[in-house]
Amino acid sequence: MKLEQRVQDIPPAARSEQAGGPVAIICGGGALPTAVAEGALRAGRSVHLLPIEGWAEPRLVERFPHTWIKLGQFRRLCRLAQQAGCREVVLIGKVLRPSLSMLRFGWSDLPLLPRAFEAFRGGDDRLLSMTAAVFEEHGFRVLGAHEVAPEILVPEGALGSLSPAERDSADARQGFAAIAAMGPYDIGQAVVVADNHVLAVEAIEGTDDMLARIAEMRAQGRIPVPRGVGVLVKAPKPGQDRRFDLPAIGPQTVANVRRAGLAGIAVQAGEVVIAEPEIMIRNADAARIFVAGFPPAAER
Amino acid sequence: MKLEQRVQDIPPAARSEQAGGPVAIICGGGALPTAVAEGALRAGRSVHLLPIEGWAEPRLVERFPHTWIKLGQFRRLCRLAQQAGCREVVLIGKVLRPSLSMLRFGWSDLPLLPRAFEAFRGGDDRLLSMTAAVFEEHGFRVLGAHEVAPEILVPEGALGSLSPAERDSADARQGFAAIAAMGPYDIGQAVVVADNHVLAVEAIEGTDDMLARIAEMRAQGRIPVPRGVGVLVKAPKPGQDRRFDLPAIGPQTVANVRRAGLAGIAVQAGEVVIAEPEIMIRNADAARIFVAGFPPAAER
Repeated sequence: MKLEQRVQDIPPAARSEQAGGPVAIICGGGALPTAVAEGALRAGRSVHLLPIEGWAEPRLVERFPHTWIKLGQFRRLCRLAQQAGCREVVLIGKVLRPSLSMLRFGWSDLPLLPRAFEAFRGGDDRLLSMTAAVFEEHGFRVLGAHEVAPEILVPEGALGSLSPAERDSADARQGFAAIAAMGPYDIGQAVVVADNHVLAVEAIEGTDDMLARIAEMRAQGRIPVPRGVGVLVKAPKPGQDRRFDLPAIGPQTVANVRRAGLAGIAVQAGEVVIAEPEIMIRNADAARIFVAGFPPAAER
Repeated sequence: MKLEQRVQDIPPAARSEQAGGPVAIICGGGALPTAVAEGALRAGRSVHLLPIEGWAEPRLVERFPHTWIKLGQFRRLCRLAQQAGCREVVLIGKVLRPSLSMLRFGWSDLPLLPRAFEAFRGGDDRLLSMTAAVFEEHGFRVLGAHEVAPEILVPEGALGSLSPAERDSADARQGFAAIAAMGPYDIGQAVVVADNHVLAVEAIEGTDDMLARIAEMRAQGRIPVPRGVGVLVKAPKPGQDRRFDLPAIGPQTVANVRRAGLAGIAVQAGEVVIAEPEIMIRNADAARIFVAGFPPAAER
């Protein structure tokens, strides 16, 4: 089994460390949660996964010790994490567009319901941040995914065989500066810049929708640069809670960037996480798209 | 005829002024070009319209002295304006998504073709700005629509029967500040702000597409505020060429704001133009949507 092989790859010193017992990983959708689990194992931590029904991918999580949970089972979550001996918790993965009927509360959750509905109304990420708060109130430490699995962070430099051209780097710098300028207004983690012109700004629609917009406008002849010019730029908003809201890239990002006709993907090194890096980089190379981590502004 | 009645309404002093002869109005699509023509007549200027085939609306322009032109006929444009005795030119109205087959050059335009294709590649507004440059090279003055028809500018205060609530005004201030912060990066003229949270930022997709995005996300349950909360905020980008690129609102904006479920429309007074104000305000009142001009930041 692939996982066991990996665990055997880890030096015994690291494996015996087991700082705070196993880490509980609350898993939303996508490939990131299990990438974090694998990264934690490599780093010598054991893990217990708590995948959320309807979002987490069975095929991926079933390779790890896990207990399925339903969205809204706050107390049960805490109890399961305690039973597994966890003192530290990571929340990772998408919980997009939950419908009210997907919420399953237990009797013990009743006191939390007003907060839960408020968070629910906030959509997308708010249930996750409310869940984090409940964990902290129960004495758990909530960690960022990158704290237990540093390897999921995009490093500095080109990840695949292509490097950004000078024009691409100029677009990337423009994008990082624009994201920083929008910081005080809590606007998106991503922009598309082409020929020093900002074509799109991500707000609550998310990166995939923003890239779909570029692809659509290109089909309508509304993009003022030819295919192969332009960069998707991602960086955390200044002041963002890096524990459960780091921007992420993965194979889907490459597919969307290709459809949008851009040259590549520029992210802030050490501040953006990557899901399924091998697949992503293979696809990026095949599509002649660069993927690169840029140093922070001060070092650029 | 409505137009003649209007001309008779103008005080003779104003009508006899006729500063630089008739003003040539190059008309793209929408109701704004003829609103400008009427405004100019009211202000005592005579006009000669040069509507662009495929964009200008025959029903509207045919009430004025006019000569139809085709996109790309740069020299003919200059000749027609000269023949009509015009020394001043206004370019107004949408020229969205022209296809290459809609361009019609004359022999005398040959030297301009490289620039024209470059501008064409730029899409949307760039052909307009190139046309303005050609006019200036031929000794014309290019004026902003509001310079010949000040009445098309949104004044300060509520335009319809509804005023913004305090929450709406706070959202509007947040939006104006965000647009100002994005100024150095030449990003959009519009944002949607709800409960002090920026939901969308307009880049090259335009206001209509941005509002459609909000409507779509609302249908998907992805908007974190209920219907009736949130404001469309429009202001010119700092440093924008106000002669032919002022942000505009009109009945279409009201229809889109209604679909997006927002409370109203906040624009920077004196810096945003309005098309078909009577229809727009009637529709806004019917939909319980406020439309208001806000003073510049220093006076807010």
